[in-house]
Amino acid sequence: MAIRIFITGGTFDKEYNELNGELYFKDTHMSDLLEMGRSKLNIEIRTLMMIDSLEMTEEDRELIAHQCNQCEEDMIVITHGTDTMSDTARMLAKSVKNKTVVLTGAMIPIKFGSSDGLFNLGGALAFVQTLPPGVYVAMNGRYFNSDNVRKNKETGMFQELNQKV
Amino acid sequence: MAIRIFITGGTFDKEYNELNGELYFKDTHMSDLLEMGRSKLNIEIRTLMMIDSLEMTEEDRELIAHQCNQCEEDMIVITHGTDTMSDTARMLAKSVKNKTVVLTGAMIPIKFGSSDGLFNLGGALAFVQTLPPGVYVAMNGRYFNSDNVRKNKETGMFQELNQKV
Amino acid sequence: MAIRIFITGGTFDKEYNELNGELYFKDTHMSDLLEMGRSKLNIEIRTLMMIDSLEMTEEDRELIAHQCNQCEEDMIVITHGTDTMSDTARMLAKSVKNKTVVLTGAMIPIKFGSSDGLFNLGGALAFVQTLPPGVYVAMNGRYFNSDNVRKNKETGMFQELNQKV
Amino acid sequence: MAIRIFITGGTFDKEYNELNGELYFKDTHMSDLLEMGRSKLNIEIRTLMMIDSLEMTEEDRELIAHQCNQCEEDMIVITHGTDTMSDTARMLAKSVKNKTVVLTGAMIPIKFGSSDGLFNLGGALAFVQTLPPGVYVAMNGRYFNSDNVRKNKETGMFQELNQKV
Repeated sequence: MAIRIFITGGTFDKEYNELNGELYFKDTHMSDLLEMGRSKLNIEIRTLMMIDSLEMTEEDRELIAHQCNQCEEDMIVITHGTDTMSDTARMLAKSVKNKTVVLTGAMIPIKFGSSDGLFNLGGALAFVQTLPPGVYVAMNGRYFNSDNVRKNKETGMFQELNQKV
Repeated sequence: MAIRIFITGGTFDKEYNELNGELYFKDTHMSDLLEMGRSKLNIEIRTLMMIDSLEMTEEDRELIAHQCNQCEEDMIVITHGTDTMSDTARMLAKSVKNKTVVLTGAMIPIKFGSSDGLFNLGGALAFVQTLPPGVYVAMNGRYFNSDNVRKNKETGMFQELNQKV
Repeated sequence: MAIRIFITGGTFDKEYNELNGELYFKDTHMSDLLEMGRSKLNIEIRTLMMIDSLEMTEEDRELIAHQCNQCEEDMIVITHGTDTMSDTARMLAKSVKNKTVVLTGAMIPIKFGSSDGLFNLGGALAFVQTLPPGVYVAMNGRYFNSDNVRKNKETGMFQELNQKV
Repeated sequence: MAIRIFITGGTFDKEYNELNGELYFKDTHMSDLLEMGRSKLNIEIRTLMMIDSLEMTEEDRELIAHQCNQCEEDMIVITHGTDTMSDTARMLAKSVKNKTVVLTGAMIPIKFGSSDGLFNLGGALAFVQTLPPGVYVAMNGRYFNSDNVRKNKETGMFQELNQKV
């Protein structure tokens, strides 16, 4: 019973460049997080890209879908920038069948002191083991079906499409 | 759809007393963790006790069972010391019915830099929303049925009863 | 025997805005750091500005000099962005006399996990108590006279003017 | 201009043993701290012992004094448990001459989130470069002469012998 983790970038893996004061991508911190969580899950990690989700193209999303369909595992966690996470989820729902796919990310880079990344990862790995096949977003302790989720840009929180506030 | 969290102590909530260099309990850090995780779940927290699980008596376990049965919520997460977490899970399985109860904890206090607590909490809150009624232990990214789990004292990891190493 | 701390901004006090993913200034973290260091020094903190040191104008530097001259204390620590810290030190050396002024800062924001800010602050507060009147830069565990210091933009380290590498 | 750091243990270097929940010594974290502080000082580290200062014997103190006298460097920082730091300082003052020796430590282990260790180390390294020959304790942002310092066991703070509260 193996789980595949695909890395695509997003706030989750951003780092601080101390020479120019900008945020950038180097390597994913996924292995460190799994070690911190003392995970004993059977996990394969693959980095597909390292980009801001605002820069993600349709081609990028097709690559992600292709990788989801091609990999052996039926349980897939994808780390993803939060800005277009819902868009990618909806696109994947059209082309990935019979697998449980959970997208997650972070509002604060995991290299920073107060990140939500470890909490979200713990949740995503639990949801992917227990939810029926389908594509989901796991953020803020909750899970959302890919056809009923959006990021509220004012609060930074994820919610159902018809939810107010 | 509300979740109840019961606090019982354990490594999870241990703090360092800088006057005498010993570990002790003050208050639970649950609210801080939920805030760090940017949880939007509807959660009620209640501290039942603050003890090492090696000191937990049958009376303490009966109190926990009673609280599980009495509370309104059908989804219950219990933070618990790891040493006797499996024992408490088995006892609760006998007396708590028709609710999903997930016990979790930490190998390293959450006040210390490299704790697994936030990861475990994220997982426990996800499992409690998705697993059928029953009593479970959620540690190391995995969940275990209460009748098939033990802590391996040599590795510190949780595993099935018949699992080797 | 009191010490004055002037806050001017810089990497030291940068925070991560989780809504737009940019770094910004909110409040100084100086009090938190002094508390973490269990400082028992008699310290007065005043925030003069909250800016990147690349944006610091001559007018800003005159304000800092004025405040140094006007304040009661003879021992002054100034937190400052690293990019123009040496420039400000040289300017202050011309106009502030008979006081010990130590500029310090951080390569990584103190809100991030691996910041050098607490180390630098500990050093700056020690140097200001022990160095003779003059203006100094305290970074990388060392102190530099204001007339013999520059930031090496390739390494991010401070060094004497004639030092190679 | 080199600095010698001697490690003797104390809270500074304590770690949490996740198998039995006790604090213990493994290796010193000095190199990690100096790296975090981006220190460019010329430093030699030597671990003399790894013990609680309450367990330090006269023989241990003689070893420390011997090492201070034998080493090439004239600037020496010693990490030490806080409980008997003042005693060791007084003993060293009798036998180490013509060198600047600064003892420091931490109230909270540096592996824990909110340690004062990095602040104290930054201060100790600054004091050792600037104070005249003698033996000092550097804690709480201050320095104390070895003949006029004690730890207030009720507050955990260091103070002069005649200071009240």
